[in-house]
Amino acid sequence: MRDEAVRLAHGSGGRETFSLIRELIVSMLEEDMKRVEGGVGTDELDDGASIPLPDGRHLVFTADSYTVKPPFFPGGNIGELAAAGTINDLLMMGAKPVAMLDAMVVEEGFPMDDLRRIVSSLVSTLRDEGVKLIGGDFKVMPRGNVDGIVITTAGVGVAERLIVDSRIKPGDKLIITGSVGEHGAAILAAQRGVDVESQGLSSDSKPLTSLMLPLLREYGDRIRAAQDPTRGGISQSLNEWASKTGLVLVVDESRIPVREEVRAYTELLGVDPLSLACEGRALLAVDPGSADEILEFIRGRGERDAQIIGEARASERYGGLVLIKTVAGGLRILEPPSGVPVPRIC
Amino acid sequence: MRDEAVRLAHGSGGRETFSLIRELIVSMLEEDMKRVEGGVGTDELDDGASIPLPDGRHLVFTADSYTVKPPFFPGGNIGELAAAGTINDLLMMGAKPVAMLDAMVVEEGFPMDDLRRIVSSLVSTLRDEGVKLIGGDFKVMPRGNVDGIVITTAGVGVAERLIVDSRIKPGDKLIITGSVGEHGAAILAAQRGVDVESQGLSSDSKPLTSLMLPLLREYGDRIRAAQDPTRGGISQSLNEWASKTGLVLVVDESRIPVREEVRAYTELLGVDPLSLACEGRALLAVDPGSADEILEFIRGRGERDAQIIGEARASERYGGLVLIKTVAGGLRILEPPSGVPVPRIC
Repeated sequence: MRDEAVRLAHGSGGRETFSLIRELIVSMLEEDMKRVEGGVGTDELDDGASIPLPDGRHLVFTADSYTVKPPFFPGGNIGELAAAGTINDLLMMGAKPVAMLDAMVVEEGFPMDDLRRIVSSLVSTLRDEGVKLIGGDFKVMPRGNVDGIVITTAGVGVAERLIVDSRIKPGDKLIITGSVGEHGAAILAAQRGVDVESQGLSSDSKPLTSLMLPLLREYGDRIRAAQDPTRGGISQSLNEWASKTGLVLVVDESRIPVREEVRAYTELLGVDPLSLACEGRALLAVDPGSADEILEFIRGRGERDAQIIGEARASERYGGLVLIKTVAGGLRILEPPSGVPVPRIC
Repeated sequence: MRDEAVRLAHGSGGRETFSLIRELIVSMLEEDMKRVEGGVGTDELDDGASIPLPDGRHLVFTADSYTVKPPFFPGGNIGELAAAGTINDLLMMGAKPVAMLDAMVVEEGFPMDDLRRIVSSLVSTLRDEGVKLIGGDFKVMPRGNVDGIVITTAGVGVAERLIVDSRIKPGDKLIITGSVGEHGAAILAAQRGVDVESQGLSSDSKPLTSLMLPLLREYGDRIRAAQDPTRGGISQSLNEWASKTGLVLVVDESRIPVREEVRAYTELLGVDPLSLACEGRALLAVDPGSADEILEFIRGRGERDAQIIGEARASERYGGLVLIKTVAGGLRILEPPSGVPVPRIC
C-alpha cells in the first residue's frame, strides 16, 4: 500500500526511511547521476559521498540536518551534536575531517543567549578537532513555522583510503567502541519530562577524531566497514550491513555493552537499547586476524567498554539478516527497527 | 541595544543578517578557523567557500537552506529553487557545479505526491545542468514542528579561476543579466493570496549554467565579481560590494530592467523592486574595456534584458555606499534593505 502522506516513521532512520529514500530519490536517478565517476554516491546509502582525487585519495562529503528536541539535553546540545555528528560521519568514511559549513534555520523569538550558547558549542567542538568553519547560511522562520532551531551541516574531509560498508567479508569481526543507546535514552527521557540527570542518563555525543584518526593510521587496511550507529542504533547499522553484503551478522547480546542506567530505563519503557541512537560510538567490521589487537588499541585510547560483539558469516539461509544470541541462550533474528521510538532524536 | 531574541529581520539577508552573522559566528572564530589556508572562508561572506587544490584550481562549497512559502509558486517550486539556487551560488564563485547533497526536513502529514513532485523537480533541474546528486539526509518532524518542508543543500564545484567579490576595481562596470525582483514579487503576491498568474507575476528562478559557463570560459579574467541577488535583491548585493571594497557604486535607475507587472504590483504595495529577490539573475562587475562586448555576449545567449547599470568609483566621501541616479533626475543613497519585505522568500 502506498503512503499518501509522510509519516514520522519515514524519518526514523530505520526500515521505512530506507525504503522511502530508495523509492523517492534513488529510483529517480539515472546511473550516472548517482555519483561522480569512481566515487561513492547516493545509492550506497553510506555515511557520506565521495569524489576521487587524481592522486588516489577521496574527497568525502556529508550533509545532515539536526532537529533534536530539546536543543539542550544532558550531555550536549544541538550545536555540539551537529559538529560531532558531522565529524563522525566523515571519520566513518575513512576521512580526516577538514571543514564544515552550517545552515541554521531558527524560529522567530528564539532566545539570543541560547543561540549564542549553541553556536559557541558548535565552534568549540570544531576547534578542538581541528576542523574549520568555512561558511554557511542563516534563515529565520516566522513564529510557529519551525519549533526552535534546525541546523544542517555540510562536512568535507579527505580519505587516504575510503571505507565503504559493502566491503565486509565472511569471518570479519564486529567491534563496538563503547556502550550503546545512551543518546537515545537521554533524549527519550528528556522528551518525557523525566529528571534525566537524577536517573544517571546522559548523551554519549562526542567527536571520535582522537580515536579514529590513529586507528585509521595504524589499521586502515584492516578496517572493512565503519558506521556511527545513530538513528535506529546498532540494530539498524547491523541490519544495513547485512542487507548490503548478503552476509549474516551474528552478534552475542551478552557482549554488547549497555550501561546499567540505560538498561533500567529502557526496560521500564519496553524499548530496546540496541535500537536507540549512539552519538559517540563507532561500529567497526575488522579483519579477524587483527581483531584482538585492534580491540586493545581502542581500549588503550580510553574506550574501556569496547567489545568484539560478533562476526560476519556467509549463509545461504540467513544471508542478509542479523542473528542475535540472547542472554537467555536462544538465537533470534534481530529485526531492523521500524516505527518511531523517539522523534527528533538527532 | 542587544537583541534578546531572534527577529525575522535577522534572516532577511539584509543589514540585520550580516550584523548578526558577524557578531554571532565570525567573531567566535579565530583567524585560522575561518578558512582552509589559501581558500575563501566565513569572513568573506561571499556566495560560497573554497579549498585550494594543488594544481591552482579551487574546490568550491556552498550550503543553503530553502524555506520558501508556498512550496509551489508560479514559475517554480522549492525543489527546483534549491537545485537552481545551489548551482547559481557555485557559478557566482566562478565554479563549474559538479555535485550536490540534499538534506530534507519534512512535516509529518506532508502529501507524498507533493514531495514526489518536489524531488522530481530538484532531480530534473540537476540532470539538465549535468550536476550529480551524490547523497543527502531525510528527516521528519512531528506535525506542527515545521511548516511543510525545508530543504538544505550542499553544493560542490570546481573553479579554474575563483571569483571573489572583494576584487572589484574603480572603473569596473556593473551588469545585470535580466530584469529584477520577479521571484520576490511572485512570492509576496502568493503569500498575500493574490491570484499571481492573472497579475502576470512569475518567479525568474532558473539555473544560470548555460549563461555563466561560456561567460567564464570567454571572459573569466575580466569578470571581477559575481553575485546572484537573492535575499535583499540587487540593492543588497550592491551594498555588500560597496561595503567590502570601500568603493562607491553608482547606478542609473533608468537602466535597471524591471518588468511592467512587477513595477505595477510593487508600486501598489510600496515595496522597492530593487530589494526583492531574483533567483535567475547575475549581477556582475566587469573590466570596463570589455563591458560592451560582455553585454553583447550575454544578450546573445538569450538574456535580452541584460544591461550595464552603473560602475564602481573611488570616492573618499561616498566610499562604501551605493548611489542611485533616480528616474526623476536626483542622486540618492541606496540603503541596504532592512526589515523583512517578505519572510520565507527562498
